[in-house]
Amino acid sequence: MTNIKALKGHIIYTKVKDTFEVHENSYIVIDNKKVVGIFKELPDIYKDISIIDYGHNAIIIPSFIDLHIHAPQYLQMGIGLDLELIEWLQQYTYRNESLFSDVDYAKKIYPTFVDNLYNEGTLRSCIFATIHNESNKILLDELKKKKLSAYVGKVNMNQNAPNDLLQSAECSYEETKSFIDYFTEDLIKPIITPRFAPCCTSELLAKLGKLSMKQELPVQTHLAENKKEVEWVKSLFPDSKNYSDVYKKYNLYGNQKTLLAHSIYLSDEEVAMASNNDNVYLVHCPDSNGNLTSGIMPVTNYLDKGIKVGLGSDIGAGHKMSMPSTITSAVQYSKLRHVFRNEERVLSLSEAFYLATNVNGSFFGKVGSFEKDNFFDALVIRDPDPLVNYLKPIEKLQRFLYNASSNSIVERYLEGEII
Amino acid sequence: MTNIKALKGHIIYTKVKDTFEVHENSYIVIDNKKVVGIFKELPDIYKDISIIDYGHNAIIIPSFIDLHIHAPQYLQMGIGLDLELIEWLQQYTYRNESLFSDVDYAKKIYPTFVDNLYNEGTLRSCIFATIHNESNKILLDELKKKKLSAYVGKVNMNQNAPNDLLQSAECSYEETKSFIDYFTEDLIKPIITPRFAPCCTSELLAKLGKLSMKQELPVQTHLAENKKEVEWVKSLFPDSKNYSDVYKKYNLYGNQKTLLAHSIYLSDEEVAMASNNDNVYLVHCPDSNGNLTSGIMPVTNYLDKGIKVGLGSDIGAGHKMSMPSTITSAVQYSKLRHVFRNEERVLSLSEAFYLATNVNGSFFGKVGSFEKDNFFDALVIRDPDPLVNYLKPIEKLQRFLYNASSNSIVERYLEGEII
Repeated sequence: MTNIKALKGHIIYTKVKDTFEVHENSYIVIDNKKVVGIFKELPDIYKDISIIDYGHNAIIIPSFIDLHIHAPQYLQMGIGLDLELIEWLQQYTYRNESLFSDVDYAKKIYPTFVDNLYNEGTLRSCIFATIHNESNKILLDELKKKKLSAYVGKVNMNQNAPNDLLQSAECSYEETKSFIDYFTEDLIKPIITPRFAPCCTSELLAKLGKLSMKQELPVQTHLAENKKEVEWVKSLFPDSKNYSDVYKKYNLYGNQKTLLAHSIYLSDEEVAMASNNDNVYLVHCPDSNGNLTSGIMPVTNYLDKGIKVGLGSDIGAGHKMSMPSTITSAVQYSKLRHVFRNEERVLSLSEAFYLATNVNGSFFGKVGSFEKDNFFDALVIRDPDPLVNYLKPIEKLQRFLYNASSNSIVERYLEGEII
Repeated sequence: MTNIKALKGHIIYTKVKDTFEVHENSYIVIDNKKVVGIFKELPDIYKDISIIDYGHNAIIIPSFIDLHIHAPQYLQMGIGLDLELIEWLQQYTYRNESLFSDVDYAKKIYPTFVDNLYNEGTLRSCIFATIHNESNKILLDELKKKKLSAYVGKVNMNQNAPNDLLQSAECSYEETKSFIDYFTEDLIKPIITPRFAPCCTSELLAKLGKLSMKQELPVQTHLAENKKEVEWVKSLFPDSKNYSDVYKKYNLYGNQKTLLAHSIYLSDEEVAMASNNDNVYLVHCPDSNGNLTSGIMPVTNYLDKGIKVGLGSDIGAGHKMSMPSTITSAVQYSKLRHVFRNEERVLSLSEAFYLATNVNGSFFGKVGSFEKDNFFDALVIRDPDPLVNYLKPIEKLQRFLYNASSNSIVERYLEGEII
């Protein structure tokens, strides 16, 4: 009944955010779905288990998790990025999402989207779909086929968007419930997804909050991405103390695990709210924030206050469906913020990697680290450029994160199995 | 004797910086090495010329030019980027460049470096080699083999670097002269290359300036990349008014065409110097400047003052040997600068493209545009993802710049010929 195996290679991961753990030419032992331990020499008790030796050119790292990604925006990556948020939504994004009322269109886009998640080594993700359940189901089916793990949310909107993307509060709520019933397996789960406060009335937010509480479902939405948006929310919800409080008021903030994408422009009060709530993840999407001229999250400030900061590619405002790109952009953006805000420290590469693996993984449970009893989710990396063999294992990882393409990923493991 | 042909596809380029010229389903006629014109219908006089039809999925754009790239740093891309400039030079770059005293090492690195230029569609570039002429010759040979165009400089240093990278002023000068004699053809030319002021004594700078003047050779070096570096130059050259003036004093500033990489921290006086000199190119290397926490060039300020701003990948401090990445990073970085300096406008995508093609091209002559009498340097782009065919031609270009890999480049033309 036991299913124990060992992989051999240079094993690299982060246990704490400040340093990479590097185990050169070592074995990682996996019992069924989970990590048993890492060993320089294989202990006698494992002498008869099967060993896969990936050779001295390979590094073995935790696979990536993307905490904020819009599946319908796959084809929109890189398009129309001379605009800012609100104009970009109106001129490109909503028009594009309307196309998903046609299931045949979803059947064209979603398989390629899911293939790209797989190719890029993003084996788990938290996904915004659209309001259209028939198309949303296509997305779930494709994720299942590729054996990827995800939270997928039916998007909810009942105001301030084109009519064909709006549903009544009641209809949006009922459709959310019926979509939830379509989920059947452990790896793919539902998540409550109000698009963002400006697109939802209090009535809709209240219904979604109740549903999240009753069914113990996590929540994903957007928060404080753009200064104009923050002002807009203030005018739409004058009774709320701040933007975070809009969600809080309707039980959509930190009662269950909650992903708040962007979170750039938070008041001190909102920062305190986030730091006092272990269910709250502020999701940093650096490329998206650059592309839409939104700003740069003060990520090290947040981390140093004990806030959980996750990372997301946020395609299509982000232009690369790649967590290595997101990791290195997070580091770059933090350096650029430091240039203008000298008092804020710079994010190191190991920290950004820790966010994309350990922190992002914690949204899914014991995921993202190679410590004992974690699910063994991993990528085996071997750069096709033979010159890379001049580099030390940690340099191979740096090179992969900054420069290599998904061609370097030669094997993908999810919960102990090759997928 | 005539060698006239036409290519068909969606032809896109920039004539002025503010807009893309888009010629859907059109013909570009090439006579020998140069552009004749672009036509929606082929005129009768061309009815018998050969036509290559790349189909309605292809876009045809000017090929890329990289105005600042360090060939020996190829293997260093992405490595050690938690450091700032001076520390990064000392801990990684100089150590790495020392390896090129071994010609066999150059024989391993340079072919791959040149292959990557070719793959990425960078058909012309201005390259820093190392101090080692035997290895530098390998680089020239490889460029010749791949039929690429370049300016290549032997690096000059006689102080403030590890001993094995220093030569006496006399030796450095003589070696530069002897390297120049090794150049034999039109496409590959020499360029005078003092590394940067801190690594050169006045004596060496003076010799190089004289050589540039006498042989009418262009110059490439670094300028005002990092605040500490600017202070250092001030202490090393107390008699010069400012950093630019160090080069000016020794005839290395704008007497011949001059590439000044980075140029982030310029005084008003230096900005005026650059804007009054048509030979001066300030070369923006956004990724490098982010990775080394250097800062962000005020690129739109410079452009609006009439300064020639070029673009460079600056590997290995830049982490992508790709001009599309450099173009989109320049746009992103300008947006991020705008967030902190609201009074400065944002660089548009067409402007960044114009810099990487028209401005960069002008360093090589009539290059970088598809206007009449320009050398026909071009890339044919066809994204392997069939979904991209839903996009309009200009959106295909946006997608390529932001998202696609070099796999999308299906043909490369330099001076009218497929290479």
